[in-house]
Amino acid sequence: MSDRRERAYSLMKAGQSKLINAFEAQGEGTFEAYSWERPGGGGGTARVLERGSVFERAGVNVSAVQGEAVPPSLAKQHPGTEGKPFFATGISMVLHPVNPYVPSFHANYRYFEVGDSDIWWFGGGADLTPYYPFKEDVIHFHQSLKAQCDRHPQANYQKLKEICDDYFYIKHRNEMRGIGGIFFDELSKPGTGDWEADFNFAKDGIDTILEAYIPVIEKHKNKVYGEREQTWQRYRRGRYVEFNLVYDRGTLFGLQTGGNIEAILMSMPLYAHWTFNYQPEAGSPEAEMLEYLQPRDWV
Amino acid sequence: MSDRRERAYSLMKAGQSKLINAFEAQGEGTFEAYSWERPGGGGGTARVLERGSVFERAGVNVSAVQGEAVPPSLAKQHPGTEGKPFFATGISMVLHPVNPYVPSFHANYRYFEVGDSDIWWFGGGADLTPYYPFKEDVIHFHQSLKAQCDRHPQANYQKLKEICDDYFYIKHRNEMRGIGGIFFDELSKPGTGDWEADFNFAKDGIDTILEAYIPVIEKHKNKVYGEREQTWQRYRRGRYVEFNLVYDRGTLFGLQTGGNIEAILMSMPLYAHWTFNYQPEAGSPEAEMLEYLQPRDWV
Repeated sequence: MSDRRERAYSLMKAGQSKLINAFEAQGEGTFEAYSWERPGGGGGTARVLERGSVFERAGVNVSAVQGEAVPPSLAKQHPGTEGKPFFATGISMVLHPVNPYVPSFHANYRYFEVGDSDIWWFGGGADLTPYYPFKEDVIHFHQSLKAQCDRHPQANYQKLKEICDDYFYIKHRNEMRGIGGIFFDELSKPGTGDWEADFNFAKDGIDTILEAYIPVIEKHKNKVYGEREQTWQRYRRGRYVEFNLVYDRGTLFGLQTGGNIEAILMSMPLYAHWTFNYQPEAGSPEAEMLEYLQPRDWV
Repeated sequence: MSDRRERAYSLMKAGQSKLINAFEAQGEGTFEAYSWERPGGGGGTARVLERGSVFERAGVNVSAVQGEAVPPSLAKQHPGTEGKPFFATGISMVLHPVNPYVPSFHANYRYFEVGDSDIWWFGGGADLTPYYPFKEDVIHFHQSLKAQCDRHPQANYQKLKEICDDYFYIKHRNEMRGIGGIFFDELSKPGTGDWEADFNFAKDGIDTILEAYIPVIEKHKNKVYGEREQTWQRYRRGRYVEFNLVYDRGTLFGLQTGGNIEAILMSMPLYAHWTFNYQPEAGSPEAEMLEYLQPRDWV
């Protein structure tokens, strides 16, 4: 592996260890390791915790794969790459907590190289899916991501936030999956950026997860809740399922190209619930939550 | 409405009433009516039962819509129809029972007319999704559908069964959604069939639902089950969700074209469950069930 590939892959692996330690420290439960290999080259390690005291189902996956030819559906988003050999490594995580007052969280950072490493880019992002509206949590989350962007001149928070708002949108429901965050396919356009600078943004992004999400977990994880809150949480997790199976490019790409299916569908919640035409009572916290699911300026 | 359109629509409405009566007679619970209108013309009535004693969530929907132009994605499957005015009416149902020993059931019959009624076709089918392997149920179900086909010279059971096996296949899991049934996009190619004959096949198809599915409900609905069976049922319903949101053409077409979202997603179960890398114990009924999920000759 070239030095760049090696450094990017090491970043993902180190991030996995660090984040798992931080998540495990929140309560009972262990992230078990499941390694898989890709027939075309490479593989990954899924670290999965289920039925913990704080997380109902959580996964932090790292992969590094290579192939003879960039798959057509991916090349479409990155013109000029079709058919060329590629290397890709990334970290991807989804955490679904037990307590309905603790939001679900998703983030991924990934590095892509095409051909002889002259074409490369970093992608990634982080977004939060609360079930109850705590304005200060949402502001804290967005402020953490804004501070991350502000530390790197090539990253524009406002732009990455808008991409996130557009991407995590459940069109058939006219609502976002959560309250957004940041998201980007390519931080710098392939071949145009400063490698060290973009690498450092991804590194900072992985570190920022701790300060953006952990305090929100700690604040709510021991809060008392009842059946009403749990039912609502599972109902909203149905929307998480709808987004990921209908729209999420990473998920659909994985399903089409035959990646490790259990690692890909790690984003599914332990339980999801659907019920016909449900409308939360006007003035309830559940109804207020729905208002948070439209793009808004949070910082 | 022309006589043909009127007769097709009446068939769907009569089928809805008849089937709802039969399903309601199985236990407690009522199919509530929700009518909706389509901005482009037409509308429908969803009849929905939730949290009944026999059905956890069940819907029997009828719609009749018209438009100025066949949508491109639909025209792709029916060459020569793109951009022409159309009329479509259909009945569509999904039933998710409470008892894990009772299979879920899906069927739909639909009539499509393009232009000035010279191009028309009937589509439809019925398929069963058991959670536990009762060979005699599966044979009974397929035999009922074969008998239906055998009553109509233009319908070839073997062919319609194979289309069903191909269609209800969860590619990323290498398994069928259930044990199949029959399915067809066009019973006779547009413009080539005998209208009365194809209408009678659809009519017979709706009637056949009663004899194919009701005895299976009655056989198992009062069977004692425990948490193990319920957990497995909800886990398998996760696969139902995966199929419908990732592959089902009717669902995706509805989501893209903005039909009534609650009526379209009536197919979602009340509860679904995911868990990492689950493998039923060898020799268990759950493991045996998985063997039923590959195409097989059942009659």
